[in-house]
Amino acid sequence: MVHETPVRVRYGEVDRMGFVYHGHYVVYFEMGRTELLRSLGATYRELEDAGTLLVVVETSQRFLVPAGYDDHLMIRTELADVRGVRLRFEYEVLRDGQCLATGHTVLASCDKNGRPRRMPARLSELLAPSAGEQESRKAEGAPDVQGAGQGAS
Amino acid sequence: MVHETPVRVRYGEVDRMGFVYHGHYVVYFEMGRTELLRSLGATYRELEDAGTLLVVVETSQRFLVPAGYDDHLMIRTELADVRGVRLRFEYEVLRDGQCLATGHTVLASCDKNGRPRRMPARLSELLAPSAGEQESRKAEGAPDVQGAGQGAS
Amino acid sequence: MVHETPVRVRYGEVDRMGFVYHGHYVVYFEMGRTELLRSLGATYRELEDAGTLLVVVETSQRFLVPAGYDDHLMIRTELADVRGVRLRFEYEVLRDGQCLATGHTVLASCDKNGRPRRMPARLSELLAPSAGEQESRKAEGAPDVQGAGQGAS
Amino acid sequence: MVHETPVRVRYGEVDRMGFVYHGHYVVYFEMGRTELLRSLGATYRELEDAGTLLVVVETSQRFLVPAGYDDHLMIRTELADVRGVRLRFEYEVLRDGQCLATGHTVLASCDKNGRPRRMPARLSELLAPSAGEQESRKAEGAPDVQGAGQGAS
Repeated sequence: MVHETPVRVRYGEVDRMGFVYHGHYVVYFEMGRTELLRSLGATYRELEDAGTLLVVVETSQRFLVPAGYDDHLMIRTELADVRGVRLRFEYEVLRDGQCLATGHTVLASCDKNGRPRRMPARLSELLAPSAGEQESRKAEGAPDVQGAGQGAS
Repeated sequence: MVHETPVRVRYGEVDRMGFVYHGHYVVYFEMGRTELLRSLGATYRELEDAGTLLVVVETSQRFLVPAGYDDHLMIRTELADVRGVRLRFEYEVLRDGQCLATGHTVLASCDKNGRPRRMPARLSELLAPSAGEQESRKAEGAPDVQGAGQGAS
Repeated sequence: MVHETPVRVRYGEVDRMGFVYHGHYVVYFEMGRTELLRSLGATYRELEDAGTLLVVVETSQRFLVPAGYDDHLMIRTELADVRGVRLRFEYEVLRDGQCLATGHTVLASCDKNGRPRRMPARLSELLAPSAGEQESRKAEGAPDVQGAGQGAS
Repeated sequence: MVHETPVRVRYGEVDRMGFVYHGHYVVYFEMGRTELLRSLGATYRELEDAGTLLVVVETSQRFLVPAGYDDHLMIRTELADVRGVRLRFEYEVLRDGQCLATGHTVLASCDKNGRPRRMPARLSELLAPSAGEQESRKAEGAPDVQGAGQGAS
């Protein structure tokens, strides 16, 4: 389950070194997973408006080659793991096929008060065909009850 | 009713020219009026949590001299006018006494649905000593002499 | 000389009211004029790399209807005026044809040290067919020497 | 070598959930290490103006408890390691003594073209009393006892 999202670097995203300021990569990552979800038929906006928040629990970024102003980047987003209330996304930021940066994000499904909350069935079904399925195999038989368990079998 | 708020320019706020990106000035303005309110004994957070939003209706910025990374700026904020549900703030951004930029913001008191809403009594009282005083006169049909000294006498 | 640029509202651009934070509109405006220039065959990046900066001198924003997360906006950018070293752009931010916000920007052509500098001939030529032409007429015969004068005749 | 830097959460830094958008934590981290350097007598601005860039190579953030608008946070920054051209900083974001988030950054000393460059002597000396001291030993072939108290004796 992989999606590629194009991003044009904005002027204000570049710092005085002439490179994209490192803090903007998490924004690019967010655009990547938002568009991955949209490509599956879900929008994060609807999810949130219906009461489910996907809260960022942890994230990392590794920078290999700097990007510059007006660069046309490709954000390659992979849903790498679904485990209980947690989703793990992994990213590559590419320019003309060259990898400039990598990273990951772990999100947890929560209610409006920030308490863990089972993912909505519809989301689980959308995510099931790929990552969910691999995941239940990776878990080596230990059933990871997540609402999507049936969908993935 | 004037307040001065210090701001240290952050690395990511500076663009590839080496100047503060112009889009950050409205953020500095917001810091200025937030601290002006705090100095009067109100916090915008409490106001909003109690159901009153101060929505930005219009704003302008004029840039005279560029600011740079790590500059220590002073945001001089003046509450220039209170009229019905509207507040007008005016700003100067200074460095070592030199004016680098000016601007203004007009905010409207609204409820959570964005409809105009009379300012809470407590806020009006806090703002009363200066601009507020002119306002209550105007509200009684006094001629609009905003900006003219005699209006407040 | 008008261009329309689509923008998808990012998560981090929306504030706790649920609306696009007002400070992001100048970023949308910048995207609009960047794409207008690109549509003419110029890129602002090349211009700047060749030593000409277009520095923002003043800007204003007026907010009519709030935009929300994930909204698909259209930035309608018009090059309204070219006068000497100055360019004036005007903007409308639209959602489904409804105008949510308007604004303007004045930019000045400068060298790397921030001193006014005649616009490069190539840029003047690109801008000449529309705004430049109108401009020289608006100036009522008073020739506004700007390098593009011949191009517009 | 630890420094504490206060930060007031700005309005535009909070998202529609009412929490600080996760992308702003790296900005807080940057403020923390900038102020740590300043407390030692160096400014990152001077360093960069003299030709040495400290480029972010990797960073991570872990989020434990959300922060909100107008919160008064304390960024606790530690220079955890100096190794060749690399500096490692570790961070805790605190509110009233409670840890809300943690993270780290690795920076590499580079020249203006992004090539690794030995840290300027003055910076190395400033950092020497703690981590730097370990570093100079390591550079002489001493075993890597980073983090162990005896290395610094």
